[in-house]
Amino acid sequence: MGSVAEPELAEAHMRQLLGSLGLDVNYVRGQANTLYFLDNGQEHAVVDFVGGYGSLIFGHNHPKLVAYAKQLLDAQVPIHAQFSYHPYANELATALNRVHRREFGTAEDYRAIFANSGAEAVETALKHAEMDRSIRLAALGEQIHSHVEEARAAVAAGAAVVADQAYDTVGVTDRSADSYERLVEAVHRHNEPKFARSPLFLTLEGSFHGKLAGSLQLTHNSAYRLPFRALAAQARFLPFDQPAAIDKALDEERTFVFDVVVRDGVVDVVERELPVIGGFFVEPIQGEGGIHEVGVDMARAIRAAADAGGFPVILDEIQSGVGRSGAFFAGSHIGLTGDYYVLAKSLGGGLSKLSVLLVRDSRYQPDFELLHSSTFAKDAFSCHIAREVVQMLEADDGAAYRRVVERGDQLRAMLERIHSAFPDVVKDCRGRGLMLGLEFQDQSTCDDEIIASSARDGLIGYVLAGYLLREHRVRVFPTASASHTLRFEPSVELTDDEISQLESGLEAACQLLHERAGARLVGAA
Amino acid sequence: MGSVAEPELAEAHMRQLLGSLGLDVNYVRGQANTLYFLDNGQEHAVVDFVGGYGSLIFGHNHPKLVAYAKQLLDAQVPIHAQFSYHPYANELATALNRVHRREFGTAEDYRAIFANSGAEAVETALKHAEMDRSIRLAALGEQIHSHVEEARAAVAAGAAVVADQAYDTVGVTDRSADSYERLVEAVHRHNEPKFARSPLFLTLEGSFHGKLAGSLQLTHNSAYRLPFRALAAQARFLPFDQPAAIDKALDEERTFVFDVVVRDGVVDVVERELPVIGGFFVEPIQGEGGIHEVGVDMARAIRAAADAGGFPVILDEIQSGVGRSGAFFAGSHIGLTGDYYVLAKSLGGGLSKLSVLLVRDSRYQPDFELLHSSTFAKDAFSCHIAREVVQMLEADDGAAYRRVVERGDQLRAMLERIHSAFPDVVKDCRGRGLMLGLEFQDQSTCDDEIIASSARDGLIGYVLAGYLLREHRVRVFPTASASHTLRFEPSVELTDDEISQLESGLEAACQLLHERAGARLVGAA
Repeated sequence: MGSVAEPELAEAHMRQLLGSLGLDVNYVRGQANTLYFLDNGQEHAVVDFVGGYGSLIFGHNHPKLVAYAKQLLDAQVPIHAQFSYHPYANELATALNRVHRREFGTAEDYRAIFANSGAEAVETALKHAEMDRSIRLAALGEQIHSHVEEARAAVAAGAAVVADQAYDTVGVTDRSADSYERLVEAVHRHNEPKFARSPLFLTLEGSFHGKLAGSLQLTHNSAYRLPFRALAAQARFLPFDQPAAIDKALDEERTFVFDVVVRDGVVDVVERELPVIGGFFVEPIQGEGGIHEVGVDMARAIRAAADAGGFPVILDEIQSGVGRSGAFFAGSHIGLTGDYYVLAKSLGGGLSKLSVLLVRDSRYQPDFELLHSSTFAKDAFSCHIAREVVQMLEADDGAAYRRVVERGDQLRAMLERIHSAFPDVVKDCRGRGLMLGLEFQDQSTCDDEIIASSARDGLIGYVLAGYLLREHRVRVFPTASASHTLRFEPSVELTDDEISQLESGLEAACQLLHERAGARLVGAA
Repeated sequence: MGSVAEPELAEAHMRQLLGSLGLDVNYVRGQANTLYFLDNGQEHAVVDFVGGYGSLIFGHNHPKLVAYAKQLLDAQVPIHAQFSYHPYANELATALNRVHRREFGTAEDYRAIFANSGAEAVETALKHAEMDRSIRLAALGEQIHSHVEEARAAVAAGAAVVADQAYDTVGVTDRSADSYERLVEAVHRHNEPKFARSPLFLTLEGSFHGKLAGSLQLTHNSAYRLPFRALAAQARFLPFDQPAAIDKALDEERTFVFDVVVRDGVVDVVERELPVIGGFFVEPIQGEGGIHEVGVDMARAIRAAADAGGFPVILDEIQSGVGRSGAFFAGSHIGLTGDYYVLAKSLGGGLSKLSVLLVRDSRYQPDFELLHSSTFAKDAFSCHIAREVVQMLEADDGAAYRRVVERGDQLRAMLERIHSAFPDVVKDCRGRGLMLGLEFQDQSTCDDEIIASSARDGLIGYVLAGYLLREHRVRVFPTASASHTLRFEPSVELTDDEISQLESGLEAACQLLHERAGARLVGAA
């Protein structure tokens, strides 16, 4: 550690906040669901239900993965071999396709593009979707261009005349010499800014898709997003469970450009719809928004809207994917097939950083490979680890998925007991597999001022986290954008004892909330 | 590897292109400056001058770093311990500050924010710069607001009257009842869209700052950038070595809003300058643009413009930093102190993925820590490795930097020999330390059609790469945005034999270009 005199230069402000909540613990070791910190030279164990925000489906430092990582290091795998053949990347892509075919019952291949973090893969998806949209834009632009040429030829040959209503439509009043050219100019003047405008992305209220410049604008939380809104294209956030709202929004966003047609010797101007929607980003189970699973009707409506509108559905499975839901793809539970999938977090096995964007073959743009790249991406180390993670999930006919379901059921049963025992404190319990949330009642008008002010400041979940860590050696956190919902994302190695330890902690915490004993919750009494 | 029947799902199009150039080699092992591929079960060595595009200042799998990585894995360091205290991150930040103080002779601290790739850190810089600008925007907005209130009170009290020229300035002709309120409305109507507009970033022609949605718009190469321009805020690209062009551009971009003043009982409207520039991004030595070092006069002009305009200079040291130039920060050679620094590539030691954004204390926004985050960032593994990299560079009073200079001089002397021997083929040799470039003459009008068409297609550098790999077991690549410049970024372990091997290869390649023997260059004869 730095000497006492040296200032904190790595996020001192955050450390101060963590410190005020009793959360600035220095963990020195992690294994399975346990993190250890030192106190007076002795290790103290903390049961970790945060699990790297869903990155640890096999827990901290899984022995098999650690051994494999060391073996890769010993073998001197070439981590930096850009612009060469990476068979390991292809093997990982192939393995992911095999899983996808089984879970969704589809035959189509998905192409893989590699990145280094979930947010990076979301940005890659944004870029690929924009390339897709540009091609649709260009096709429309070319059609209009050729129609304009055809009409010009027809007018020049005396085979067609321009309809009065065409001039009216484009707002040309002076119809003197070169009137067709004036019409064309007006069509272009109308169309050009529309062709140049930014795409609009759709996603759901409560969504979280990352915090890089582009992906951040898909993340609903306004505190994170609004200060940076001038940096990137915008999203429209649709209600989480109102299928009818999708078509309504699409109607409102519909944008038309002018096209020229020749019919029966008459040149007319008609409207053509412009592809303005870049794609629909969906987390099958929202993580940071408070652990909410998209409903089957909503899923169906999203899929139908995308098919009708010709834009891709991008399933963000960064947190919900890679086994956490009890299947590899959480979208498979709700029958929502994506045109793209974004995978990260647990795919790195808790040891490596990688993310993968999968794109349906029929929507894939091969030239994207020549435009997009990343020095750190598609490296041998992370690809090999990720392939091993997929193998571990798939082994023994999917025993790990069954284990997720069984462990998740046990954990959920305990959370339901807490919910039932403290209805005045706990509002809801939800989620799937090992991605569970416990929503607390709003405490902002509680007559204990400590509790009430914590709730008003959006810190009640962190106060609970501080209490559980301090008094019960249990690590939990609220979801980032719904701070009154605690999330539980332990590994598949979760033991009954660990569930019991959490249960004791939650019982005690709920009892203190029930008793309005805020001072004891924050450790001040 | 996947079975023969399975399709290539990971960038098949790229592999096809690499294959056509003889570059689709499957490297199975890397050590120091050597990559190995298998042929008939036997390892073949290739001398690697690509070095992970500058990521390998200590070479592939440096034994000390590999041993340290294994030690970290054995110790079960907690890679996923988000929202806790990370002393290792602070130690790395402290070490980077120590180096910075020495190289720039400044006393001010720089705060560290962590990310996972160079492009991610650029995006983080974009966000921080925008937060900085928003604060300046808000301060201006508040000043105008309070001036409007003061003037309103003065008018209401009969202590001031609105000047005719104030109405003229804002374009209010109807000066009947509530005329001051009409003036205020006109001021707001004028100001609001200007306050809401996107920031403009400045950078240089030839720049490369990454390929994520935001960072991509700072990357000059139009083939990469333009298809995605609707996704993010734009940059203005200034000539690489025209100091006078900076002020000219700033004058052109200057944007004014209206403010209200009361002077001697008269309310007038004046113009105030709006902070529209988000920051000036500079690579002290451009990598992908063809290995060009920013000149001292240009550096001074950039610094002066930023100081006058109040916007930050962001030094992108992703490729040039971490020792590659013979100093830790390449900016130190040209006396260009950054308000921000972006570090990545070699800082990961060739084994881990991390990047760091350093922000000058006086410009740092502590609240940024509460808004920005990344699951994978600031992890123990990559921070420990990076701290070790810094230690290895700093050890023995900076022996590694001296070694970079000495090895760089040897390599450069050889490249100069090639340049002198083949003036009709080689146009220039440049760079610093172990970041060197060899620019070839334009061959697009060569009377050998193979050479000419490769040059016209922007593939001549890749054709040379294929030849050198196939015939001389040397791995080189052109820079991404200047494909007629080969780049050389080997590790500090570079041996004389490796230089000789490259020399033989370059001599032979230049001879073939000289002889217009395109068929032999592509291996077709």
